[in-house]
Amino acid sequence: MSGDFKRVAVIGGTGKEGSGLAMRWARAGYEVIIGSRSAEKGARVAAELNERAGVSTIRGTDNASAAREGEVVVLTVPYSAHKATLAQIKDEVQGKVLVDVTVPLKPPNVTVVYIPEGGSATQEAQDFLGDGVKVVAAFQNISAAHLKDPEHAIDCDVLVCGDDKAAKQVAITLANAAGMRGIDAGPLANAVVVEGLTPVLIGINKRYKARGAGIRITGIEEE
Amino acid sequence: MSGDFKRVAVIGGTGKEGSGLAMRWARAGYEVIIGSRSAEKGARVAAELNERAGVSTIRGTDNASAAREGEVVVLTVPYSAHKATLAQIKDEVQGKVLVDVTVPLKPPNVTVVYIPEGGSATQEAQDFLGDGVKVVAAFQNISAAHLKDPEHAIDCDVLVCGDDKAAKQVAITLANAAGMRGIDAGPLANAVVVEGLTPVLIGINKRYKARGAGIRITGIEEE
Repeated sequence: MSGDFKRVAVIGGTGKEGSGLAMRWARAGYEVIIGSRSAEKGARVAAELNERAGVSTIRGTDNASAAREGEVVVLTVPYSAHKATLAQIKDEVQGKVLVDVTVPLKPPNVTVVYIPEGGSATQEAQDFLGDGVKVVAAFQNISAAHLKDPEHAIDCDVLVCGDDKAAKQVAITLANAAGMRGIDAGPLANAVVVEGLTPVLIGINKRYKARGAGIRITGIEEE
Repeated sequence: MSGDFKRVAVIGGTGKEGSGLAMRWARAGYEVIIGSRSAEKGARVAAELNERAGVSTIRGTDNASAAREGEVVVLTVPYSAHKATLAQIKDEVQGKVLVDVTVPLKPPNVTVVYIPEGGSATQEAQDFLGDGVKVVAAFQNISAAHLKDPEHAIDCDVLVCGDDKAAKQVAITLANAAGMRGIDAGPLANAVVVEGLTPVLIGINKRYKARGAGIRITGIEEE
């Protein structure tokens, strides 16, 4: 189940986080379709990413078309665009796994944990999309500063939360493909903590003059 | 400010987490007073801890007396005893730093993040104790399995949240004294994430058959 997909849609794939993940997945052998609000911009950025990543398997189009083409759909948009983007792709993601990378932030206080009304961005996505979509939370804590160079080794784990084990395995497979370790961090109810780690890490970056603070889970390495 | 204290009270210091921290701080040169619901039990466990840690600087008494004697007060009780214990020590901690180690858990689902009504255990402590007490969150993510042997090296960072910088420095000093790295993780509002990491780690322990999963912040090491 987890390995048998090859087309990954990255909604909001023209952004820093999305384009970094898109390049890594393309280099790992996936077909990647990046979605943008404008199909023209999607296509233009896809061409740039192909060049930067040394591949030719990234295409770009509008968000709804990308979601339709993807077997797995990854959502990487600012929280302010979360609901509107979910509305654009709702019909196209039915029956699929949606990996939500969205971090709820309340600018300008982006170093303070903000818990949205629905409990977490991922929970809001699950509630909005309905039971036909398997929503998992992942990749929130990976600094875009690390992703932009597709050869850069990333010293950060990917915590994956969701209520469907096979869907979580899809996200873990994608984490591994992007050169990171994916870790099952429990049910969707735990997404509030994984999302909330991002403002904590942004604050640590500021206070410790770092650019790419991340987290590692210790104590589970095989002997 | 941060270094000039030598008497640390550990409320709930007969428990696994509290006694492990007490031994480490005693070995680092602090006078430690552990508090228990019963002064007799406190004294008995203190004698045991002195023997295990090879020191003679741990004393034990009831919670209120321990809080009165401590220059800094560390609270390590199960969440079910949090409010009642705070009531016991409220008068004794006025004007002091209280380091709250409490993790909100809702048994039997101890692998699911539980956010208490007051936002976090630490926020509830701050609201209950009032502005005369500087409450900081710390040490929630350190597995008691690591603490029980005072010579065991702990591969886990201590995230410290609070609204007072000097009070956070006290907790960072105590983390360092116990052989760990303390990291300023932002305001008290961020404690919800630090506390919530503990049920996430308990779940990771179960799923990955580990005993002491922890976290490390990456990317902030000096060059």
